[in-house]
Amino acid sequence: MSLKAEIISIGSELVSGQSLDTNSRWLSQELGALGIATAFHTTIGDDLDDNVAVFRAAADRADLVLTTGGLGPTQDDLTRDALARAAGVGLREDPDSLAAIAALFARRHRTMAERNRVQALFPEGAEPLPNAIGTAPGIWMRVGRGMFACMPGVPSEMRLMFTDQVVHRLRGLGWIERIFVHRKISLFGRGESDVEADALDLTARGHVPEIGITVHDATISFRIRGEGSTVDEAWRQTDEAVALIRLRFGPLVLGEGTTDVADALVAELARAGATLATAESCTGGLVAHLITAIPNVSPYYPGGVVSYSNQAKTELLDVPAELIQTHGAVSPEVAVAMAQGARRRFNADVAVSATGIAGPGGGTPDKPVGLVYLGLATRDTAESRRLEMGPEQPRDVIQSRSSKQALNWVRLTLQGWPDKAAALESS
Amino acid sequence: MSLKAEIISIGSELVSGQSLDTNSRWLSQELGALGIATAFHTTIGDDLDDNVAVFRAAADRADLVLTTGGLGPTQDDLTRDALARAAGVGLREDPDSLAAIAALFARRHRTMAERNRVQALFPEGAEPLPNAIGTAPGIWMRVGRGMFACMPGVPSEMRLMFTDQVVHRLRGLGWIERIFVHRKISLFGRGESDVEADALDLTARGHVPEIGITVHDATISFRIRGEGSTVDEAWRQTDEAVALIRLRFGPLVLGEGTTDVADALVAELARAGATLATAESCTGGLVAHLITAIPNVSPYYPGGVVSYSNQAKTELLDVPAELIQTHGAVSPEVAVAMAQGARRRFNADVAVSATGIAGPGGGTPDKPVGLVYLGLATRDTAESRRLEMGPEQPRDVIQSRSSKQALNWVRLTLQGWPDKAAALESS
Repeated sequence: MSLKAEIISIGSELVSGQSLDTNSRWLSQELGALGIATAFHTTIGDDLDDNVAVFRAAADRADLVLTTGGLGPTQDDLTRDALARAAGVGLREDPDSLAAIAALFARRHRTMAERNRVQALFPEGAEPLPNAIGTAPGIWMRVGRGMFACMPGVPSEMRLMFTDQVVHRLRGLGWIERIFVHRKISLFGRGESDVEADALDLTARGHVPEIGITVHDATISFRIRGEGSTVDEAWRQTDEAVALIRLRFGPLVLGEGTTDVADALVAELARAGATLATAESCTGGLVAHLITAIPNVSPYYPGGVVSYSNQAKTELLDVPAELIQTHGAVSPEVAVAMAQGARRRFNADVAVSATGIAGPGGGTPDKPVGLVYLGLATRDTAESRRLEMGPEQPRDVIQSRSSKQALNWVRLTLQGWPDKAAALESS
Repeated sequence: MSLKAEIISIGSELVSGQSLDTNSRWLSQELGALGIATAFHTTIGDDLDDNVAVFRAAADRADLVLTTGGLGPTQDDLTRDALARAAGVGLREDPDSLAAIAALFARRHRTMAERNRVQALFPEGAEPLPNAIGTAPGIWMRVGRGMFACMPGVPSEMRLMFTDQVVHRLRGLGWIERIFVHRKISLFGRGESDVEADALDLTARGHVPEIGITVHDATISFRIRGEGSTVDEAWRQTDEAVALIRLRFGPLVLGEGTTDVADALVAELARAGATLATAESCTGGLVAHLITAIPNVSPYYPGGVVSYSNQAKTELLDVPAELIQTHGAVSPEVAVAMAQGARRRFNADVAVSATGIAGPGGGTPDKPVGLVYLGLATRDTAESRRLEMGPEQPRDVIQSRSSKQALNWVRLTLQGWPDKAAALESS
């Protein structure tokens, strides 16, 4: 059976170009992974007649219709009304949904506004899709040829609702027949075109399994798609390719499923049972933020200092004032002293530092925007590294790339350290 | 005259989610600035029947139809054929367009492939739109109610063709009469539905000027659209609404054009000539990162400490170990002590702190995930605040919301402080 899906995004801010719709893309990718092809994306504003007309057209030409947006409590939110009109039915209040909305407000210690009551209205014959993290429940309903799943526009709510509520209903309809598995192997530390040149045999059109390369913020990922009639079969189809990629790219590999150098670093810290401290000037807390975005990192990350001023470098990280005067705050010497200071202050096994010129101002011919020194100190060693990202790079790119390089340097350093278990045995 | 526009993006890589369509957004914005409202975006794959059906629907419901993509030389490029079928006409070769394509290949010292010849085919009655930087000419043609402009999918080619070829044709049709200006006033610190309830008179349909509300990461923005026959006139139409919003929402207003609470805070620091330090536990460096993402902040931000471990709170922020033992690290007492410690250590005028449970683990009935205490210390005062974001919120949302609340608290505190200039005068 070849199903046709349509995705409809609703919101005047989308159709006017004020906001960029990313929901449709995500949903298309998810449907593709389930073996369902999307034939149409449609975006409409908050206009009832347009909504009704587009819903009717979708009910006519698509088997599955996913909508996002228009489920809020305001008068601009028209999805409920439009779906009811397209189906030619009335609206009725669902007591369970009303109770769930009231409970969410109670948990947040806020009073439910009377207008939120409209979020418990559903077209007759519709089934509510519970929303675990927001006030707007979704709607599951057949109209004409189309099975409709109406979801909120807030991406986090929409994604959870799709994964938790919609997918198993698609399975229940018998619409997910072939099993697809997707595996992702991520790399960090080499340019995309280099990696691509070394993988032409794998990414060739017609290769089984299908392998693609994507890049996100300097992290390169191989995406391997296995197909079969069982999960096992689909998985087995990918095994050889995964092994080959790991072999070919060795230490660059962050891991499977892991998209982020911070995840891989934290895994390495846990393996080695090591603690890390940070000392940041130009990265301004981003290194710390990337680390602490990961849950349960506290045993391995006592903390860090954001030493934006020179006085902070001296007073909180024990960088000698003379060192800053002699070499400048942006220098390999100061980078090393910052890392050493942070390691001692936090009593950590390893510390990493960053000092540089993130721009857009502050560059000189000697020390241009985009110049960053990293420092790394262990109990026995202290080193610096020079990065030059180019003065044309925007501030956020300079901060982000140097933060990731810092994390990756610690990760590669830790790779040489023994396992925590082995260290305990030998002691 | 109220024109309705439709934008159609063509390409299987778009509808499958492999690529993100940014052309539609750009075109909507450009049309909006010209006073033409976009009612529909439609995205379709490389399927002839779907293309013809969507073109026919557009010819029926829109005055202006802009399409992008499907004009290349391969068999996947179906826009020419689909448009001819939708109009019920045949294709003919345009000698001028063929010569232009051949000339482009010659300039690039390449041989024109035979298949590029199809790019010189046009539906009968169509006018070619020259492409100054690529091989694919566009198509200008009326079908039914709709004036069609078919442009290439490559963004640089599409943008140039729109600006150089399409806009003056729209002017020729008498469709661009009025001048529009857009102003944005952003607010932070209250829920969307509360703000909306207090602005129903302004956002009512038919209000002049037109005012909309959007929310991005808890920042709420009013968007005000002025219209007139001159820029001055259009601007003047918005003045009263802008003044009214500022008056009504007072301290919540971040500023005009400013979308971010961090920008507004840094502006406030600069105005007051004050310095800020940060002490972060659960936000893990995000507060520092949001501040240092802004250029030229160093005079106002000496730095901060990320005190993830209790030892770091004690050793780097002078939080008494007994205080942590008695009240727990997540407590108003520790939040206040962290802020006081950071203020003293960095010798800053004001310091803000955050300690809480970002989850997903670590919550207890007494101190659930999503509970965060903020602390704020000045030279004379020290206070704490309790935030509860709800245990169902993901870690990144808890970290982001509490960071922004911390920044906003400092911003509101500074609003009571005199100008730097005034302080200098009086001293």
